Amino acid sequence: MTTTDASAAAASTGAAQAVDTAVRAAAASGLERTSRAERAGWLRAIADALEAHRDELVALAHDETHLSEARLTGEVTRTATQLRFFAGVIEEGSYLEAALDSPDASLVPPRPDLRRMLRPIGVVAVFAASNFPFAFSVLGNDTASALAAGDPVVVKAHPGHPELSRRVAAIAREALAAAGGPVDALVLVGSEGGASGMETGVELVRHPLVRAVGFTGSTRGGRALFDLAVSRPDPIPFYGELGSINPVVVTPAAAAEDATGLAEGLAGSFTRDGGQYCTKPGLVFVPAGTGFEAALVAAAGEAPAQRLLTAGMTAAFAAGVGELGARDDVEVLVAGTTDAPGDSASTVVATSAAAFLAAPEAFQTEHFGPLTLVVRYDDAAPGGDLDRALAVLEGSLTGTVRHAAADGAALADDAELVERATAALSRVAGRVLYNGWPTGVAIAWAQHHGGSWPASTASVHTSVGATAIRRFLAPVAYQDAPQQVLPAELRDGNPAGVPRRVDGVLQA
Amino acid sequence: MTTTDASAAAASTGAAQAVDTAVRAAAASGLERTSRAERAGWLRAIADALEAHRDELVALAHDETHLSEARLTGEVTRTATQLRFFAGVIEEGSYLEAALDSPDASLVPPRPDLRRMLRPIGVVAVFAASNFPFAFSVLGNDTASALAAGDPVVVKAHPGHPELSRRVAAIAREALAAAGGPVDALVLVGSEGGASGMETGVELVRHPLVRAVGFTGSTRGGRALFDLAVSRPDPIPFYGELGSINPVVVTPAAAAEDATGLAEGLAGSFTRDGGQYCTKPGLVFVPAGTGFEAALVAAAGEAPAQRLLTAGMTAAFAAGVGELGARDDVEVLVAGTTDAPGDSASTVVATSAAAFLAAPEAFQTEHFGPLTLVVRYDDAAPGGDLDRALAVLEGSLTGTVRHAAADGAALADDAELVERATAALSRVAGRVLYNGWPTGVAIAWAQHHGGSWPASTASVHTSVGATAIRRFLAPVAYQDAPQQVLPAELRDGNPAGVPRRVDGVLQA
Repeated sequence: MTTTDASAAAASTGAAQAVDTAVRAAAASGLERTSRAERAGWLRAIADALEAHRDELVALAHDETHLSEARLTGEVTRTATQLRFFAGVIEEGSYLEAALDSPDASLVPPRPDLRRMLRPIGVVAVFAASNFPFAFSVLGNDTASALAAGDPVVVKAHPGHPELSRRVAAIAREALAAAGGPVDALVLVGSEGGASGMETGVELVRHPLVRAVGFTGSTRGGRALFDLAVSRPDPIPFYGELGSINPVVVTPAAAAEDATGLAEGLAGSFTRDGGQYCTKPGLVFVPAGTGFEAALVAAAGEAPAQRLLTAGMTAAFAAGVGELGARDDVEVLVAGTTDAPGDSASTVVATSAAAFLAAPEAFQTEHFGPLTLVVRYDDAAPGGDLDRALAVLEGSLTGTVRHAAADGAALADDAELVERATAALSRVAGRVLYNGWPTGVAIAWAQHHGGSWPASTASVHTSVGATAIRRFLAPVAYQDAPQQVLPAELRDGNPAGVPRRVDGVLQA
Repeated sequence: MTTTDASAAAASTGAAQAVDTAVRAAAASGLERTSRAERAGWLRAIADALEAHRDELVALAHDETHLSEARLTGEVTRTATQLRFFAGVIEEGSYLEAALDSPDASLVPPRPDLRRMLRPIGVVAVFAASNFPFAFSVLGNDTASALAAGDPVVVKAHPGHPELSRRVAAIAREALAAAGGPVDALVLVGSEGGASGMETGVELVRHPLVRAVGFTGSTRGGRALFDLAVSRPDPIPFYGELGSINPVVVTPAAAAEDATGLAEGLAGSFTRDGGQYCTKPGLVFVPAGTGFEAALVAAAGEAPAQRLLTAGMTAAFAAGVGELGARDDVEVLVAGTTDAPGDSASTVVATSAAAFLAAPEAFQTEHFGPLTLVVRYDDAAPGGDLDRALAVLEGSLTGTVRHAAADGAALADDAELVERATAALSRVAGRVLYNGWPTGVAIAWAQHHGGSWPASTASVHTSVGATAIRRFLAPVAYQDAPQQVLPAELRDGNPAGVPRRVDGVLQA
């Protein structure tokens, strides 16, 4: 064994031990036996603590991620809002899906007394994302929804903001302790980064007591962990949000009415915070030969360059831009040059729908950073090149239709096209939006943040919005159970006061 | 290439072509664009047609499966009931989870108009089970719930009842045609069986247009197909119900009060229809030294032998019994002998909790057929051998607690034990039942038929009950969408009249 091998083995053993200690502590936290009211209180206490440390945390996050303080300040608010949102979701109680059926011996087969609801599943592993150091990190949606569900969480820190991760975890644990909650309901691992950090992630997904994984990150890294999760002796669900290209369709009438407004809006969206959003519009279908491209060149050229989250991302972005730009079928509209070394500048490339159709996979690789690809189409009629291009779209978090005039007024010319685009986009994207831009994901009961592979590892799940909690729950049906062993939510008389379905009838 | 290789290659090519043709026909059926009312009507038409052909189908099923005509007659009713049940579920409409949030620019981030509901996902592959030739086969729960959801289905026939599969599929397609429905919403493949049949299953799971798989069968076969589904370039959900041992806990007080009644009930349950139920009680924890075992020996000895579904199952059962009986730590209580060649007879073996704890995996292998394993415990107190044995249980569909007297009256002696057993069983089993037997699964809103691996490939899903439909749906959120592109269930004024959540408030 060489010295390098020996160090790697030692790191591996250290990572395995650290993960085992963390997972066992979380499993022993007793969170699953606490009440919804208790957990709601603790989520709010953590949210309050986060906001109380806002200035300190924003400064730390800015140092580690290069995101602007304004953006990070808003993200702290968002993160606190998410935590409080899930407190409200569990207080309301319908997420439990409580259902009661009364006995009926006349049925075939006979029906006993059946009472079903969702229960916590056990320890959840959460992999923090790089690009939302608060809202999709240690206290992000995955953690908030898992804790709300009653599942203790072990977070794998993202190497892009290790110090922030440690500080946020410490603040959350202090808040839990101060509120009388189980401190080990949230445990951080892997903040040391490097090879040991990667090994930590592997050990976490393999640990027998881990019951599900929440992940936000790259398709490559996510696929590797997904493969581990499903190849366990007992496979576990891997809820991953991976890559997304977020196609946008600009209709002919909209392009004719508002080329400049659309170009400026697009430039603002795809360059926002360095284009480091999972919902960045990276693929824009535009009618050929309008004023849109010239306006986009002007608007994108004015967007400031940004230092990306990590050096690795900067290099990967440059490589991706270089690869695209070297293609014969690609025209570089904005070259993405900047005087600031280490920064990445806005880049716009264009191709034809015919070229896109000839190599749909090559043009649907996500480029994390300020790049968008314009696809020029000639024919928006049924069966035309736009239709054919939309038919080969891969999974995305969002799909956008821009079909209105600048003042939002509907343009009747494109009504039928809007329906066709909706059908095509909703086949692959979890959120379809109209006359807006996809960056910016509201926290709401009706939100969905997912889509076909690779946007999500399974299109049925969301990582944002109220139903994100369902990923970390499993049903139990109790048959002819004595009252005292039933959860309060299923007892006679509904002492917990939750919405229930009784003999098939929903009682809100 | 040898002749055998050439035949296998030809069969493989033939299977691939047959699957491709079937999947493309299903995908083109247009079922996802039909209304809930239409699909409810078609499900009822299929149910009526099934019952109208009952006599013919029962005779066919009896020939192919050796199950009794009485059992099969009841199973036809069950299957028709399931189809009608899902018709009712989609008419009621809350399965869509329709949710609407109104715009609020004051929030961080601002909230647009968001409307979310579940939509069909596309072609579903269903693998029929051997042991329910109606209720978990061509028109079983998986098919019924997928069709109800709006997903066309391609069924892989089980080789144990190919002729019945073809006839049922033909009847269903005729019923669809007569009712004006899309005939190709249900397509059968693989009924020719053999090597080509297996290849058919593989091709089906790999087909790019297949969006999810429903499977009921063995852990070994299910794991192989699960591994295929998750290793696709675009992994798809594999909803499998695999093995289940279905532990039963008999409390000391119940054993003392009603040893004979419990033994007779258990014998009836584990030998029912040859013990070929996924919910067969295969592992029974009984206090040592009561009259229970003698009563069980008497009752099990009287149960009739049964020819199992296939010759392969007969051989596998004999091998499993032989392996268990050869163990030093196992006592054979009922040896399972019969004069009828080809039949399998009731078998009871016993071991100690200490032996079980020493080799928990060996004792938790499912033996499909009329076998149960008694585990004698000495100590039902907290931390005793019963507690320790329950702590190492693997996933099961059901867990049973027998704690009452013969008349069903509660026995106060064991109250605390019942709570402890509930906690242990609900950790691994999707249905926990009291003072009944697990065979017999009611069709109900509150039913859950699933459990931790290997009972289910993911414990969050059920294959029986109203929520089985959710496996075959995925959410879409529409943001600021024009009314005309929205599904009726999400339009202003709720023209479809479904239960919805509006700004977080459930409106039943």
